[in-house]
Amino acid sequence: MLDFHKTLENEQSLDPENWEKTRQLAHQMLDDMLDYLQTIDQRPIWQKTPEAVKAHFTQALPQQPTSAEEIYKEFKTNVLPYNKGNIHPRFWSWVEGGGTVLGMLADMLASGMNPNNTIGDHAPRYVEAQVIDWSKQLFGFPPSASGLLVSGGAMANITAILVARNQFLAGIIRQKGLKFLDNQLVIYCSTETHNCLTKAAEIIGLGSDNLRKVPVNEKYQIKIEVLKMMLLADKQAGLLPFCIIGNAGTVNTGAIDPLDELLAIARQENCWFHVDGAFGALAKLVPAYQADLAAIEQADSLAFDFHKWLYVNYEVGCVLVREAKIHREAFALQANYLLSHERGLAAGPDTISNYGLELSRGFKALKVWMSLKEHGIQRYQKQIEQNIAQAFYLQDLIRQTSDLELLAEVSLNIVCYRYKPQNQSLSENELNDLNKEILMQLHENAIALPSYTLLANRYAIRVAISNHRSQKADFQVLVEGTLALGKKILAD
Amino acid sequence: MLDFHKTLENEQSLDPENWEKTRQLAHQMLDDMLDYLQTIDQRPIWQKTPEAVKAHFTQALPQQPTSAEEIYKEFKTNVLPYNKGNIHPRFWSWVEGGGTVLGMLADMLASGMNPNNTIGDHAPRYVEAQVIDWSKQLFGFPPSASGLLVSGGAMANITAILVARNQFLAGIIRQKGLKFLDNQLVIYCSTETHNCLTKAAEIIGLGSDNLRKVPVNEKYQIKIEVLKMMLLADKQAGLLPFCIIGNAGTVNTGAIDPLDELLAIARQENCWFHVDGAFGALAKLVPAYQADLAAIEQADSLAFDFHKWLYVNYEVGCVLVREAKIHREAFALQANYLLSHERGLAAGPDTISNYGLELSRGFKALKVWMSLKEHGIQRYQKQIEQNIAQAFYLQDLIRQTSDLELLAEVSLNIVCYRYKPQNQSLSENELNDLNKEILMQLHENAIALPSYTLLANRYAIRVAISNHRSQKADFQVLVEGTLALGKKILAD
Repeated sequence: MLDFHKTLENEQSLDPENWEKTRQLAHQMLDDMLDYLQTIDQRPIWQKTPEAVKAHFTQALPQQPTSAEEIYKEFKTNVLPYNKGNIHPRFWSWVEGGGTVLGMLADMLASGMNPNNTIGDHAPRYVEAQVIDWSKQLFGFPPSASGLLVSGGAMANITAILVARNQFLAGIIRQKGLKFLDNQLVIYCSTETHNCLTKAAEIIGLGSDNLRKVPVNEKYQIKIEVLKMMLLADKQAGLLPFCIIGNAGTVNTGAIDPLDELLAIARQENCWFHVDGAFGALAKLVPAYQADLAAIEQADSLAFDFHKWLYVNYEVGCVLVREAKIHREAFALQANYLLSHERGLAAGPDTISNYGLELSRGFKALKVWMSLKEHGIQRYQKQIEQNIAQAFYLQDLIRQTSDLELLAEVSLNIVCYRYKPQNQSLSENELNDLNKEILMQLHENAIALPSYTLLANRYAIRVAISNHRSQKADFQVLVEGTLALGKKILAD
Repeated sequence: MLDFHKTLENEQSLDPENWEKTRQLAHQMLDDMLDYLQTIDQRPIWQKTPEAVKAHFTQALPQQPTSAEEIYKEFKTNVLPYNKGNIHPRFWSWVEGGGTVLGMLADMLASGMNPNNTIGDHAPRYVEAQVIDWSKQLFGFPPSASGLLVSGGAMANITAILVARNQFLAGIIRQKGLKFLDNQLVIYCSTETHNCLTKAAEIIGLGSDNLRKVPVNEKYQIKIEVLKMMLLADKQAGLLPFCIIGNAGTVNTGAIDPLDELLAIARQENCWFHVDGAFGALAKLVPAYQADLAAIEQADSLAFDFHKWLYVNYEVGCVLVREAKIHREAFALQANYLLSHERGLAAGPDTISNYGLELSRGFKALKVWMSLKEHGIQRYQKQIEQNIAQAFYLQDLIRQTSDLELLAEVSLNIVCYRYKPQNQSLSENELNDLNKEILMQLHENAIALPSYTLLANRYAIRVAISNHRSQKADFQVLVEGTLALGKKILAD
């Protein structure tokens, strides 16, 4: 039993003992980070974490306090130099944005305010509501729509698919579960769909077999005729198609599915129409892409990321749902300790946990709110267009270079190519090994950070451009680096 | 079609045009936040967001840029003054931690570095791995265990329940889904269990009916004998019990279920044993609670939060799983664009998305890493013990005050009481209305921010103490405030 009088004889807190010293350190940290970001293009894009540093991270749980100064020194020695690199102008791996300076400062302000931004009547709730309203305006969703900030595309997609599932059969699934249903539910998407949707199908209890992967055409777009046949076959077999997913920018090549055709089929089949637009949906800001992406405005739900092609600092994605009522009915629960009140902190807008999986949520809305204000949509439009133009520019460079081969026609911001020397005859396997080696050496020599994928079993160096710091010259460095490394490796 | 040459004539970036001006503003922000945190006890704990401010947050999506200085001015006018209040010494609503100064600075550093901390070979991956190792040490999990940082308890619980579900029947559920099974899966927990677990049962496709809610005793602990009868009845009816959940600190009263008995039943029934220890698991650091919480060390999975009772800034929770192999098999997928490489950025530890729902994840590990170093476990132990002692202290104050009634025996860090004047005879309904009014006025008058719950249909003012800034005197303010408001409201 606790002797509470004794425990309370000397009360402590976790606030700094010496505020002046802490303030000094804080300003030092800030200056260092600003220097770091201001000179990022002069720093190595990537350095391997040395074994000694890795070993350092195996020390046991600290028992005693360490001074903040000491901890920061450790950070500067062991953490900062071995950063991932996605803030550097020549980072084009996976699809990752670079963040901004004001985004970093917003994260500091948000963390200092430290609200759990899910429940209660306070300004962070209204900031987040405005960010959702802005997102609706960005994609032409109606005022009756709703939305939720989440950690990223995977969570946005899971949330959307759960809404699609739960709205089916009016609440029975929430209460009784999937085993209770007479028929198996089925979702459709292309084989190029992000694997977070396979995982979503597993998570929500459908099973990956019941996420039907429809083949793609030579542009990596879903084959509409095959989709129709699969729908028919499944219905004849007694299955229940309830959701069709369209891709606005696939992860491998940036392909955009024929969204208008998918929408029409979804309406005809009484299916939910979800668009995974993790990065590609943002191309809707660019006039040349508006027609291809117009059907987003009619989608039942949309997943997209602020931290990818809106360059906001990690982590923040978003899901939009066409009908707020349906969105809420998919998740709302009432608990005794979450009763709403008319006044005081416990009043305020509808609890955000009624719209998703999470209950604890930080104030990630602030960096989005400040960023959208800082740049305004027109500057984002120009920035996104610039990244697309850079992809076409790189495609041109590759086509003009005899020892490089383009592996997929550029349609958005992703370029897939390989080194294939004309004066040598190499097998496909040899080419795969060679290009993988080139990629690893591009990284190790801190030349550039593209990533990779397999297209028809061919290893592709994959350049996904959602980087606001990249300039034309950076792509020339990549091309020259690829050629030089290819030659060197073959000569060795 | 995009004319890319034209687009690239004038390349832009989202970096500051004037770094010196940005630097000046950044230091101003930092100073303001440090002032704010240093003087937080002298500021009103809560102020209602004025209607004019709310209206401000309905302005349309910004088209043109606004200067960072202007945006910050707006933040200081419309956001900061109307903060939630959980950084203030007299905040005891829901269960929310207050954050620390170094936690805020760590969030700035993390946001500046801006890694997507899921994949690749870079230092943030090793920092996060160390935080997971430390978490295992904290709760006596074996080295073969694994874990994942998530946004909070809800996500930690969902992740754990998914592992429990997916390990059942060796992979069939991931592929075929729940409808394919011959029998209905069932989970057991007490009626006092957090409703995020009801939601988890819905999300994973079981349905809320199949999360069996076992009644509790007068200490709000699960009734073991009833659990046994329910298990038997379900098995006789052909259902498949596969998971038992124990509470280490319920949200209403802080009750700890008899975890050792639940563990024994789980082992006997071949069920997964999950512990929801969102905040309460941390009491394991305090000697007086070690026996009651010892069974955590044998649990198959544990959910707990860093942002609650370890006072780390929002948002960061954690799930631990006893067997890393089982954890990985529940989620791992391989995609062409996530191939592992031997060297370069694409090498490195196993992709974190193989252990959970998310693919994009910020560097929330840094604030945990810096905080655990800053304070060391022994200081956290003292801090948590202090909060528990404060709950017993407040219980004593209430018992000594004739017009206050304790509504549940304190067992951890939560105190539930109500105002019940001795010289008046009020009905239960009148008492409920009166206490709700007192609570709202405690907030409106910026006296303190406790929350509320219903216990046996009685409205309780609920004081959940996970605040490192609270001192004894703060609880005296609460008691005096409650009495004064009770009298005033009755007199009105």
